[in-house]
Order: sequence, then C-alpha cells, then structure tokens
Amino acid sequence: MKLVECIPNFSEGRDKKIIDAIVNEIKKVKNVSLLDVESDKDHNRSVVTFIGEPEDVKKAVFFATAKAAKLIDMNKHKGEHPRMGATDVIPFVPISDITMKECVGLAKELGKEIGDKLKIPVYLYAEAATRPDRVRLPDIRKGEYEGLKEEIKTNPDRKPDFGPSQLSSAGATTVGARPPLIAFNVNLNTNDLQVANDIAKLIRESSGGFKVVQAKGFEIKERGLVQVSMNLLDYNVTSIFKVFDTIKEEAKKRGVEIVGSEVIGLIPMDALIDVAEHYLKIENFKKDQILEKRLSE
Amino acid sequence: MKLVECIPNFSEGRDKKIIDAIVNEIKKVKNVSLLDVESDKDHNRSVVTFIGEPEDVKKAVFFATAKAAKLIDMNKHKGEHPRMGATDVIPFVPISDITMKECVGLAKELGKEIGDKLKIPVYLYAEAATRPDRVRLPDIRKGEYEGLKEEIKTNPDRKPDFGPSQLSSAGATTVGARPPLIAFNVNLNTNDLQVANDIAKLIRESSGGFKVVQAKGFEIKERGLVQVSMNLLDYNVTSIFKVFDTIKEEAKKRGVEIVGSEVIGLIPMDALIDVAEHYLKIENFKKDQILEKRLSE
Repeated sequence: MKLVECIPNFSEGRDKKIIDAIVNEIKKVKNVSLLDVESDKDHNRSVVTFIGEPEDVKKAVFFATAKAAKLIDMNKHKGEHPRMGATDVIPFVPISDITMKECVGLAKELGKEIGDKLKIPVYLYAEAATRPDRVRLPDIRKGEYEGLKEEIKTNPDRKPDFGPSQLSSAGATTVGARPPLIAFNVNLNTNDLQVANDIAKLIRESSGGFKVVQAKGFEIKERGLVQVSMNLLDYNVTSIFKVFDTIKEEAKKRGVEIVGSEVIGLIPMDALIDVAEHYLKIENFKKDQILEKRLSE
Repeated sequence: MKLVECIPNFSEGRDKKIIDAIVNEIKKVKNVSLLDVESDKDHNRSVVTFIGEPEDVKKAVFFATAKAAKLIDMNKHKGEHPRMGATDVIPFVPISDITMKECVGLAKELGKEIGDKLKIPVYLYAEAATRPDRVRLPDIRKGEYEGLKEEIKTNPDRKPDFGPSQLSSAGATTVGARPPLIAFNVNLNTNDLQVANDIAKLIRESSGGFKVVQAKGFEIKERGLVQVSMNLLDYNVTSIFKVFDTIKEEAKKRGVEIVGSEVIGLIPMDALIDVAEHYLKIENFKKDQILEKRLSE
C-alpha cells in the first residue's frame, strides 16, 4: 500500500472554531489518518499532520485548502511566523512504497487543482521546485503576503507555477515534496547564548555547515541552559549522530557539555536505527533484521 | 491483532529433506508467516522462526513437532549443541497485543497436547516454568537425551510436566514463554582469547554479572580478533547499551578497543530505539513519536 504523509500549515493558530473546521475537511475523507494538530498562538499558525494513500491525501488537503481560503483573511492575519497564504505550505513526504518522484507528481497535480479551481497562486518548492530560487521556503516567502500582493502583479520572477498572478484574501500557497524532517534540539549546560549561537552557525548549511541542516541558538531560562535547535531536512544526507557528535565536540572545546536532547514531534524509525547502528558500530546490519519490518511485509 | 512469535529448535541440521518436511508443516497453516529457517551442520540443529495469531501458531508448531517425532531418531543424533528431543525447545515470545501471561498459557496448552497426543514428555521452562530448577534450559537438559533416557524412569525430579516418564526416539521437548532474545556479539582488536573470556565472565549472569545475560569468548582467527558473544535474554532488564558500554570500559582497562559488533538474526525495534535514546540523551521521548508506530495503530 502506497503511503504518503502530508503536513499542511494553515495561517490560524488562535481561533479553535476555524482550526476545527479546516481539520474536519481532512477527517471527513475516508482512509486518511489524522496524526497530529499543533496550533501555536504566537505564530498564529496550525500544523496538521495526516497520512494515507496518495489520492485520498490529495483530496483531503484540497478540501482543507478550500475551507481555509473561505475562513482565513490574510489581510487581517498577524503572527510571528513568516507566511503568505491561508494555507501557507503543503509538503508531501514519501512514507512507504512510494517514491519522491511520485510525491513530486502529486504536488504538481494538487498545485494545478488549487490554481485552477480555487484561483489561488501556487508555487512549487523543495523537490518539486521548477526553479533553483524556489527550492527554499524563505526565498519563496520573501516580502510575505503583504509584499507579494503588489509584486506578483508586476514582477515576472514572482509569477506562480499555477493559478492567477493576483492575490485574494487567501494569499498564495506553496506546494512541494520533501523527505521526512526531524526537529531535534540539543541542550548545553551553560547559560551563555553565544555558545549555542556559535555552534548553530558552525553546523547549519546556510553558514557553511552540514547539508540540509537548519540550526539556531535559544536560551531556556527556566533551566539555566542554552539549546541548539535544529531541523534536519533529510537524515539520509546528514544524520542525527553526525550533528550530535559535532555539537558534543564543539561544546567540549568551549568547556561545555551536552546535558540532554529532544525530538519534537514525529521521527522515522530508520533515523533512530541509524543512530543505534553508529554508536554500537554494528557491522553488516540489514534493516530487515528488525522484527517489526518483517511483520509488515 | 494478537501476535506471538514461535522459535522451535529441531534436532536436524544436515538432511534438507527432513528439515523441509518439518518446515512444511508450519507453512501449510494459514495466516502464519515463516520468518526464518537457520540450519547449522555442526550443531546438527535447525532454528525456525515464525509468527501469527496464538491459535494458528500453536497448531503449526504442534504439526511440526509431530512430524519431527516421526522423522528424527534421537538414538542416532549427534551434534555439538546440547539437546534432548527431536523438537528440542519451543519458546513463545509476545510480539504485539499479547501479554507474557497469555504466552505462558499457550505454552501450557501446547505442552499438554504434545504430552497427551504424541506421548512425548514435556518440560515447561522460562516464564512458564513450574519449578525454579526448570527456568533455565541447561538445568533441564542435564545429561541430554542419553542421560535423561535412564533418569526419567527413576528420578522424581525429572518427572515431566506433561506426558509419560519415558523417552521414545523423539526424546523430550521443552516448551515455554520468554521475552525476545537478542544475539549480540562485540569484536575486540586483539587475538588474545583470554581478554574476551575474562570480559564475558564479568558480564554474564552465571558468574555474577548482569541479569539475563549469557556470554562467552570466541576467537575469530580469519580476522585476528576475539569476540564476546552474547545472548541478551530480556533487553528490558539488561539493555544492549549497558553491556556495550561495560565491554568498552573493560576492554580499555586491558588496552583493547571495540572494533565492531554484530546483531545475529532478528531484533525488536524497541531494543535499538532504546540505544539511540541512550546515546543521544533524549529527554521525555515517547515511543509513539516514531512515525511507523502511529501507522500501525
């Protein structure tokens, strides 16, 4: 059975009625499983995670996008997180028996449908991007809703992949395909934010560190600690243990130690199995030695 | 769906026709999945791993035991591995939605059936044991087939839990329930067998080491290494990382390093997830953060 995960982000994190109405559009589609809904009031944004077979997932997220377009007015939206649409971004993630290429196909089909039927401009991103300057979300979101509203009409570089070159109150939506993302934070026993910031800078791709790693320093005041907070965009390219070992080493150079870590949200089993293999130095391990993998065959 | 794993050990590792005939008895039962057949010529023994719902698994292993009783003559059996029956040992292992207690019940039902219908003496072992001196296989197998043949008739301590106090050419069978066992070996960069033996002695339960750990030193001549070879009988009691870290430390004291490790056969996912959690110092990790666990709910 082909399984794809979809994690649409909606620009509403405060009004429970609106969030529920959008989520219900997903729930009403048979054979999709809702895994998680996380709403953030400061960001004024909700992240919904669900899974199912490709056609069912596409249908569910289309309904949710249509509902969000009706209920969210981007002219009134305020929140800390950068955004440009009521349904801001829709990534598809291959889970089992499905290739990245198929997920890219799915993103393109959905993008066309949203553009044609809902008259919402759609940009393709990540693995589905049609241009190098549309691979990363920050590049696509430049100027956010307010900036894009003017620019989309005049700047050919901002012409969407699907839909009109004009924003309604639903804004624009970014649709794409990507590998499973891991949100992983490492805590250090110092209250010196500079240490976390320095290490974050060393390991993140944007400042010359590891590929597909985003990292940022944070202070955790209530514990008197600092944190290197990361998104690992593809653990097959840069593994969890690679960043962990580097942070450990860099912390040591600064007289600091790792006191703990956190995995936020969901994580693919293989990402953790890779960690166990690495630290135990297991030779010739095959993933089908895992009992549970045999069961699902 | 209740799932139980069964790993019967048969005293034939050389004659493929006999092995196939026994395995076919398992295959012919609907809804059980054959996971593995490993035959060892030196041990003259085959280990079969299969899985399914309790009643199906019980039926399949009963058929296989009946077939082994017909095809294997213990009076003619020779091999390095200690044994006392054509079907030497039958462990049930709880996999999902089933308790250890239910597996003990299954072992008792099967033991009674083998005793009553096949007239084979059955000893209950591990979690199903009825006496402390029948928990461990080496205690039950004392004297092996040849020794038990005489003793069972006269020594009340050897009276089986089910079946007659007399051995046919099928010998006696041990039936029980246990947690998943992990076969885990650690390689050290020395050719001094004494180092592996000393460390094995330190960590195994029988000489005062960790609970539910069996360990032995081996030489791997072709690589110029020695190996600490282990069975971890219950990773929830003694984890893989506990033995690994201890071996690492003890090796270091002796000027030696771990160069690699091996997992032989199947391993439960959670045993490796525990390893990742430990080395990454993950705080508050919940197993349901693993994507694949959500899918099977």
